[in-house]
Amino acid sequence: MREAVRSELLEIPAGILDVDGEDGARCAARELLEETGFQAAHVEGLASFYTSPGFSDERIQLFLARRVQRGAGPGEPGVAVVTVPFAEAMDAVRAGAIVDAKSIVGLLMAEVRTEESR
Amino acid sequence: MREAVRSELLEIPAGILDVDGEDGARCAARELLEETGFQAAHVEGLASFYTSPGFSDERIQLFLARRVQRGAGPGEPGVAVVTVPFAEAMDAVRAGAIVDAKSIVGLLMAEVRTEESR
Repeated sequence: MREAVRSELLEIPAGILDVDGEDGARCAARELLEETGFQAAHVEGLASFYTSPGFSDERIQLFLARRVQRGAGPGEPGVAVVTVPFAEAMDAVRAGAIVDAKSIVGLLMAEVRTEESR
Repeated sequence: MREAVRSELLEIPAGILDVDGEDGARCAARELLEETGFQAAHVEGLASFYTSPGFSDERIQLFLARRVQRGAGPGEPGVAVVTVPFAEAMDAVRAGAIVDAKSIVGLLMAEVRTEESR
Protein backbone atom coordinates (compact mmCIF):
# COMPACT_ATOMS: atom_id res chain seq x y z
CA MET A 1 0.00 0.00 0.00
CA ARG A 2 1.37 3.39 -1.00
CA GLU A 3 -0.11 5.79 1.52
CA ALA A 4 0.88 8.90 -0.48
CA VAL A 5 -1.34 7.82 -3.38
CA ARG A 6 -3.76 5.66 -1.35
CA SER A 7 -3.52 2.61 -3.56
CA GLU A 8 -1.63 -0.60 -4.26
CA LEU A 9 0.82 -0.22 -7.14
CA LEU A 10 2.76 -2.67 -9.27
CA GLU A 11 6.38 -1.57 -8.89
CA ILE A 12 9.83 -2.94 -9.54
CA PRO A 13 11.88 -3.53 -6.35
CA ALA A 14 13.50 -0.36 -4.97
CA GLY A 15 14.99 1.17 -1.89
CA ILE A 16 17.33 3.71 -0.41
CA LEU A 17 21.15 3.56 -0.34
CA ASP A 18 22.54 2.55 3.06
CA VAL A 19 24.06 5.52 4.86
CA ASP A 20 27.53 3.90 4.92
CA GLY A 21 28.27 4.77 1.28
CA GLU A 22 26.70 1.67 -0.30
CA ASP A 23 27.00 1.74 -4.08
CA GLY A 24 23.97 1.55 -6.33
CA ALA A 25 24.47 -1.92 -7.77
CA ARG A 26 24.97 -3.44 -4.33
CA CYS A 27 21.87 -1.65 -3.04
CA ALA A 28 19.84 -2.90 -6.01
CA ALA A 29 20.88 -6.51 -5.38
CA ARG A 30 20.15 -6.14 -1.67
CA GLU A 31 16.71 -4.62 -2.23
CA LEU A 32 15.85 -7.26 -4.81
CA LEU A 33 16.64 -9.96 -2.26
CA GLU A 34 14.93 -8.20 0.67
CA GLU A 35 11.75 -7.32 -1.22
CA THR A 36 11.33 -10.37 -3.42
CA GLY A 37 13.59 -13.16 -2.17
CA PHE A 38 15.33 -13.34 -5.55
CA GLN A 39 19.10 -13.26 -6.05
CA ALA A 40 20.77 -11.91 -9.18
CA ALA A 41 24.03 -13.33 -10.57
CA HIS A 42 24.60 -10.07 -12.47
CA VAL A 43 23.44 -6.49 -11.91
CA GLU A 44 24.21 -3.74 -14.43
CA GLY A 45 23.46 -0.01 -14.59
CA LEU A 46 20.44 0.84 -16.72
CA ALA A 47 19.47 4.49 -16.19
CA SER A 48 19.60 7.37 -13.74
CA PHE A 49 17.06 10.17 -13.44
CA TYR A 50 15.38 12.78 -11.29
CA THR A 51 11.82 11.84 -10.42
CA SER A 52 10.48 15.40 -10.29
CA PRO A 53 13.19 18.04 -10.70
CA GLY A 54 10.73 20.92 -10.45
CA PHE A 55 10.47 20.46 -6.70
CA SER A 56 12.70 17.61 -5.50
CA ASP A 57 16.32 16.46 -5.87
CA GLU A 58 15.35 12.78 -5.51
CA ARG A 59 17.42 10.82 -8.00
CA ILE A 60 16.88 7.17 -8.87
CA GLN A 61 19.52 4.83 -10.25
CA LEU A 62 18.08 1.86 -12.11
CA PHE A 63 19.76 -1.50 -12.56
CA LEU A 64 18.97 -4.54 -14.65
CA ALA A 65 19.25 -7.86 -12.78
CA ARG A 66 20.14 -10.85 -14.92
CA ARG A 67 20.23 -14.59 -14.17
CA VAL A 68 17.84 -14.24 -11.26
CA GLN A 69 17.08 -17.17 -8.95
CA ARG A 70 14.75 -17.57 -6.04
CA GLY A 71 16.94 -17.23 -2.93
CA ALA A 72 16.39 -17.54 0.78
CA GLY A 73 14.77 -14.17 1.42
CA PRO A 74 11.17 -14.14 2.64
CA GLY A 75 10.19 -10.82 1.12
CA GLU A 76 9.03 -7.75 3.02
CA PRO A 77 5.88 -7.16 5.05
CA GLY A 78 3.36 -5.20 3.01
CA VAL A 79 4.99 -6.24 -0.27
CA ALA A 80 3.37 -8.96 -2.40
CA VAL A 81 5.72 -10.42 -4.99
CA VAL A 82 4.34 -10.76 -8.51
CA THR A 83 6.42 -12.43 -11.23
CA VAL A 84 5.36 -12.15 -14.86
CA PRO A 85 7.02 -12.80 -18.22
CA PHE A 86 8.80 -9.70 -19.49
CA ALA A 87 6.49 -9.35 -22.49
CA GLU A 88 3.51 -9.28 -20.13
CA ALA A 89 5.09 -6.51 -18.06
CA MET A 90 5.66 -4.50 -21.26
CA ASP A 91 2.01 -5.01 -22.20
CA ALA A 92 1.05 -3.63 -18.78
CA VAL A 93 3.21 -0.54 -19.40
CA ARG A 94 1.64 0.00 -22.83
CA ALA A 95 -1.86 -0.48 -21.41
CA GLY A 96 -1.25 2.04 -18.64
CA ALA A 97 -1.58 -0.59 -15.88
CA ILE A 98 1.81 0.33 -14.40
CA VAL A 99 1.71 3.90 -13.12
CA ASP A 100 4.96 4.22 -11.17
CA ALA A 101 7.61 6.29 -12.97
CA LYS A 102 10.68 4.21 -12.02
CA SER A 103 8.92 0.98 -13.00
CA ILE A 104 7.91 2.36 -16.41
CA VAL A 105 11.41 3.70 -17.08
CA GLY A 106 12.99 0.47 -15.84
CA LEU A 107 10.90 -1.79 -18.04
CA LEU A 108 11.19 0.38 -21.14
CA MET A 109 14.96 0.78 -20.70
CA ALA A 110 15.35 -2.96 -20.08
CA GLU A 111 13.65 -3.53 -23.43
CA VAL A 112 16.01 -1.03 -25.10
CA ARG A 113 19.02 -2.76 -23.51
CA THR A 114 17.82 -6.19 -24.57
CA GLU A 115 17.31 -4.98 -28.15
CA GLU A 116 20.81 -3.46 -28.19
CA SER A 117 22.45 -6.69 -27.07
CA ARG A 118 20.72 -8.85 -29.68
CA MET B 1 17.72 26.23 -14.38
CA ARG B 2 16.17 23.70 -11.99
CA GLU B 3 16.94 25.03 -8.54
CA ALA B 4 15.97 21.76 -6.79
CA VAL B 5 18.74 19.90 -8.60
CA ARG B 6 21.02 22.90 -9.28
CA SER B 7 21.46 22.24 -12.96
CA GLU B 8 20.06 22.83 -16.43
CA LEU B 9 18.07 19.86 -17.70
CA LEU B 10 16.78 18.84 -21.10
CA GLU B 11 13.05 18.31 -20.57
CA ILE B 12 9.92 17.97 -22.64
CA PRO B 13 7.44 20.86 -22.16
CA ALA B 14 5.32 20.52 -19.04
CA GLY B 15 3.18 22.44 -16.63
CA ILE B 16 0.36 22.40 -14.14
CA LEU B 17 -3.36 22.15 -14.87
CA ASP B 18 -5.19 25.46 -14.57
CA VAL B 19 -7.31 25.61 -11.43
CA ASP B 20 -10.54 26.01 -13.42
CA GLY B 21 -10.74 22.31 -14.29
CA GLU B 22 -8.64 22.40 -17.45
CA ASP B 23 -8.31 18.97 -19.04
CA GLY B 24 -4.94 17.39 -19.64
CA ALA B 25 -4.83 17.57 -23.43
CA ARG B 26 -5.73 21.26 -23.41
CA CYS B 27 -3.09 21.94 -20.75
CA ALA B 28 -0.47 20.05 -22.79
CA ALA B 29 -1.23 22.10 -25.92
CA ARG B 30 -1.16 25.32 -23.90
CA GLU B 31 2.16 24.51 -22.20
CA LEU B 32 3.69 23.45 -25.51
CA LEU B 33 2.78 26.84 -26.97
CA GLU B 34 3.79 28.85 -23.91
CA GLU B 35 7.12 27.11 -23.37
CA THR B 36 8.23 26.53 -26.95
CA GLY B 37 6.10 28.65 -29.30
CA PHE B 38 4.97 25.52 -31.17
CA GLN B 39 1.35 24.65 -31.95
CA ALA B 40 0.07 21.09 -32.30
CA ALA B 41 -2.74 20.13 -34.71
CA HIS B 42 -3.33 16.94 -32.71
CA VAL B 43 -2.67 16.01 -29.07
CA GLU B 44 -3.27 12.46 -27.81
CA GLY B 45 -2.91 10.75 -24.42
CA LEU B 46 0.32 8.79 -24.06
CA ALA B 47 0.80 7.77 -20.42
CA SER B 48 -0.02 8.67 -16.84
CA PHE B 49 2.13 7.94 -13.80
CA TYR B 50 3.14 8.90 -10.28
CA THR B 51 6.60 10.46 -10.17
CA SER B 52 7.52 9.14 -6.72
CA PRO B 53 4.64 7.33 -5.00
CA GLY B 54 6.73 6.55 -1.90
CA PHE B 55 6.39 10.12 -0.70
CA SER B 56 4.31 12.20 -3.12
CA ASP B 57 0.96 12.01 -4.90
CA GLU B 58 2.23 14.05 -7.85
CA ARG B 59 0.80 12.49 -10.99
CA ILE B 60 1.86 13.38 -14.52
CA GLN B 61 -0.26 12.90 -17.63
CA LEU B 62 1.77 12.70 -20.81
CA PHE B 63 0.55 13.61 -24.28
CA LEU B 64 1.96 13.16 -27.74
CA ALA B 65 1.74 16.26 -29.95
CA ARG B 66 1.53 15.57 -33.66
CA ARG B 67 1.72 17.86 -36.71
CA VAL B 68 3.53 20.57 -34.78
CA GLN B 69 4.22 23.99 -36.29
CA ARG B 70 6.06 27.01 -35.05
CA GLY B 71 3.37 29.39 -33.80
CA ALA B 72 3.33 32.92 -32.48
CA GLY B 73 4.47 32.17 -28.92
CA PRO B 74 7.76 33.62 -27.75
CA GLY B 75 8.66 30.88 -25.26
CA GLU B 76 9.13 31.39 -21.55
CA PRO B 77 11.81 33.26 -19.62
CA GLY B 78 14.43 30.83 -18.30
CA VAL B 79 13.47 28.20 -20.89
CA ALA B 80 15.71 27.65 -23.93
CA VAL B 81 13.97 25.74 -26.74
CA VAL B 82 15.98 22.89 -28.28
CA THR B 83 14.55 20.99 -31.26
CA VAL B 84 16.16 17.74 -32.36
CA PRO B 85 15.17 14.86 -34.65
CA PHE B 86 13.30 12.18 -32.72
CA ALA B 87 16.05 9.60 -33.27
CA GLU B 88 18.56 11.98 -31.72
CA ALA B 89 16.37 12.44 -28.63
CA MET B 90 16.14 8.65 -28.29
CA ASP B 91 19.92 8.41 -28.52
CA ALA B 92 20.15 10.96 -25.69
CA VAL B 93 17.82 8.81 -23.56
CA ARG B 94 19.86 5.67 -24.25
CA ALA B 95 23.12 7.52 -23.50
CA GLY B 96 21.80 8.83 -20.18
CA ALA B 97 21.94 12.47 -21.31
CA ILE B 98 18.26 13.03 -20.43
CA VAL B 99 17.79 12.61 -16.69
CA ASP B 100 14.23 13.87 -16.14
CA ALA B 101 11.73 11.07 -15.49
CA LYS B 102 8.77 12.52 -17.44
CA SER B 103 11.00 13.23 -20.45
CA ILE B 104 12.42 9.69 -20.48
CA VAL B 105 8.95 8.15 -20.16
CA GLY B 106 7.54 10.53 -22.79
CA LEU B 107 10.18 9.77 -25.38
CA LEU B 108 10.17 6.01 -24.80
CA MET B 109 6.37 5.86 -24.87
CA ALA B 110 6.26 8.01 -28.01
CA GLU B 111 8.54 5.44 -29.66
CA VAL B 112 6.25 2.62 -28.52
CA ARG B 113 3.21 4.48 -29.90
CA THR B 114 4.93 5.17 -33.20
CA GLU B 115 5.88 1.50 -33.57
CA GLU B 116 2.31 0.43 -32.78
CA SER B 117 0.87 2.69 -35.47
CA ARG B 118 3.22 1.46 -38.21
